[in-house]
Amino acid sequence: MVVKVAINGYGTIGKRVARAAALQPDMVVVGVVKNRPNWEALSAYRLGFPLYVPEDRVEAFEKAGMRVEGTLEELLQKVDVVVDATPGGVGAKYKSLYERAGVKAVFQGGENSSVAEVSFNALANYDAAVGKRFVRVVSCNTTGLIRLIVAMRELGRVRSVRAVLVRRGADTKEVKKGPIEGLILKPAKPPSHHAEDVKTVIGDIDVLTYAVVAPTTLAHMHLVRFELEEPVTREDVIRALETTPRIMLVKASLLSSTAELREAFRDSGRPLGDIYENAVWEDSVWVSGGEVWVAQAVHQEAIVVPENIDAIRAVMGVSDKESSIKITNETLGIRGWFA
Amino acid sequence: MVVKVAINGYGTIGKRVARAAALQPDMVVVGVVKNRPNWEALSAYRLGFPLYVPEDRVEAFEKAGMRVEGTLEELLQKVDVVVDATPGGVGAKYKSLYERAGVKAVFQGGENSSVAEVSFNALANYDAAVGKRFVRVVSCNTTGLIRLIVAMRELGRVRSVRAVLVRRGADTKEVKKGPIEGLILKPAKPPSHHAEDVKTVIGDIDVLTYAVVAPTTLAHMHLVRFELEEPVTREDVIRALETTPRIMLVKASLLSSTAELREAFRDSGRPLGDIYENAVWEDSVWVSGGEVWVAQAVHQEAIVVPENIDAIRAVMGVSDKESSIKITNETLGIRGWFA
Repeated sequence: MVVKVAINGYGTIGKRVARAAALQPDMVVVGVVKNRPNWEALSAYRLGFPLYVPEDRVEAFEKAGMRVEGTLEELLQKVDVVVDATPGGVGAKYKSLYERAGVKAVFQGGENSSVAEVSFNALANYDAAVGKRFVRVVSCNTTGLIRLIVAMRELGRVRSVRAVLVRRGADTKEVKKGPIEGLILKPAKPPSHHAEDVKTVIGDIDVLTYAVVAPTTLAHMHLVRFELEEPVTREDVIRALETTPRIMLVKASLLSSTAELREAFRDSGRPLGDIYENAVWEDSVWVSGGEVWVAQAVHQEAIVVPENIDAIRAVMGVSDKESSIKITNETLGIRGWFA
Repeated sequence: MVVKVAINGYGTIGKRVARAAALQPDMVVVGVVKNRPNWEALSAYRLGFPLYVPEDRVEAFEKAGMRVEGTLEELLQKVDVVVDATPGGVGAKYKSLYERAGVKAVFQGGENSSVAEVSFNALANYDAAVGKRFVRVVSCNTTGLIRLIVAMRELGRVRSVRAVLVRRGADTKEVKKGPIEGLILKPAKPPSHHAEDVKTVIGDIDVLTYAVVAPTTLAHMHLVRFELEEPVTREDVIRALETTPRIMLVKASLLSSTAELREAFRDSGRPLGDIYENAVWEDSVWVSGGEVWVAQAVHQEAIVVPENIDAIRAVMGVSDKESSIKITNETLGIRGWFA
């Protein structure tokens, strides 16, 4: 079966999921929805994605030189599933439309978790999403944390997780957001929302998160402490990280910052220089008894892309977890190392 | 007794220590040493600090309109103690000169700890420096950590200290340093040097530090985890912070970032808008049993200034710890709160 996919919203996430879905042998992107004829719409059009727009905008798009195939409502009649990549909080407003059209929907982490039956991470709870109608892929920071937790759980029971998330202030394309200077403790009172968001996927766990917003656009950096029930060795931890899909070990002697890391992936020829993996610094792994510390970078624009692809397969029930992760990773060139 | 003080180096630290020393009733700044007739030298001259320069630079200074009082060697003959605020690593080269001149010296944290008999923090080990000849005031991040540790020790035995230091990349005046973008895990392999530096002052303690360099100039931000032997309450922790000198509690509802914090102190009229205190976000204090988390900002240019003043009194043996801290705090306007 080839899954017919619509993408509603062609911004940071939508455009990446559209490209990634187009690479899947078992998916076809029937159309993308854009509300304004801006440069991102033009980019979609030039890549050959059929454009669907609100009825009252057809003229504006055609004036801007873009052929329009129809409206969102018309697109929904042609597809099995829609990936909602509209701005945070907007997806919930479209839900009833998706419902009436009888399509399944994959929402993003900017929505409240109540929008969906399941909050999703492929490694952690693929099976819980199988056959569901509404699924929500958790946000970039939460995805990064969950993958690490999954890896640590390979080593035994995780007693607690403590994370300091140094967050990028905005994406490179966002010119109206800050900070351009300063560090913001946001919120000052812990936990940041990421702790609760982790629990929407992996259930009850003792997790505390602090978030500091920094004046950079390239990636988040996480410093994470785990307390495991049983003592482990550093080698155990490295092995668990190496064998967990979508975690990539990097050596600081090659790449010691988010700046070099992003540039290395631009060099690599991936679309938009995207990094789909957690980039864990191997050097940073520190172990004492059951206490484990790990530092990683998370490319905020890209890390949820493979999760969206797997979420499509899960809701459609067309693949099991291992097969889906495998094919997504192969088509996107995801690997476990940088060297 | 009035202590006769020389300041060697009039950069970020030197100029602040000179101003602070000039405010002390028991100190007089006999002169400051500058090697180049730049804008900072001009600033010192205009503030009325007698200038001492290398013999072969006298002409350059006088050409630039600054009267020169003599050389470093001549200045050392007139003083009891020199505060060495030369660039990191340079202080050690002057040590033999100080030795021959028979003056005591207070070095900065940029020097190796072996330069001095004692590494110093007023709260933690004032008495160990009393009467010593060579003392080293530890650096800004280390000073910030040590003050917090002293506060937590009021609550019982501290089993371990874990800190993530989000460091400012450069000071505002430094235009040749970065990063202008990106986050650097530096070093990637823990501990960062701060953990060892803490031990030079407070001896054996289980401490691990990670440092992330961020593209900002205003202040560092620390996220610190303590594990105490005995359970405590949040109120216990707040009280310990409130009653520890040079720790200031701030509320995020007033100031939620290093940007607002620095601006608030510029508004306050302090020289250079300096913040001598650890600025601890009251909201950030999180307690569970013996586990305590605290977030604080550290103004890297200013936090060691009161420590240098106390170090002068300690080496000269002119005051006990409590009196010295009290008078330093009063003269610099240091307080325990922001509201």
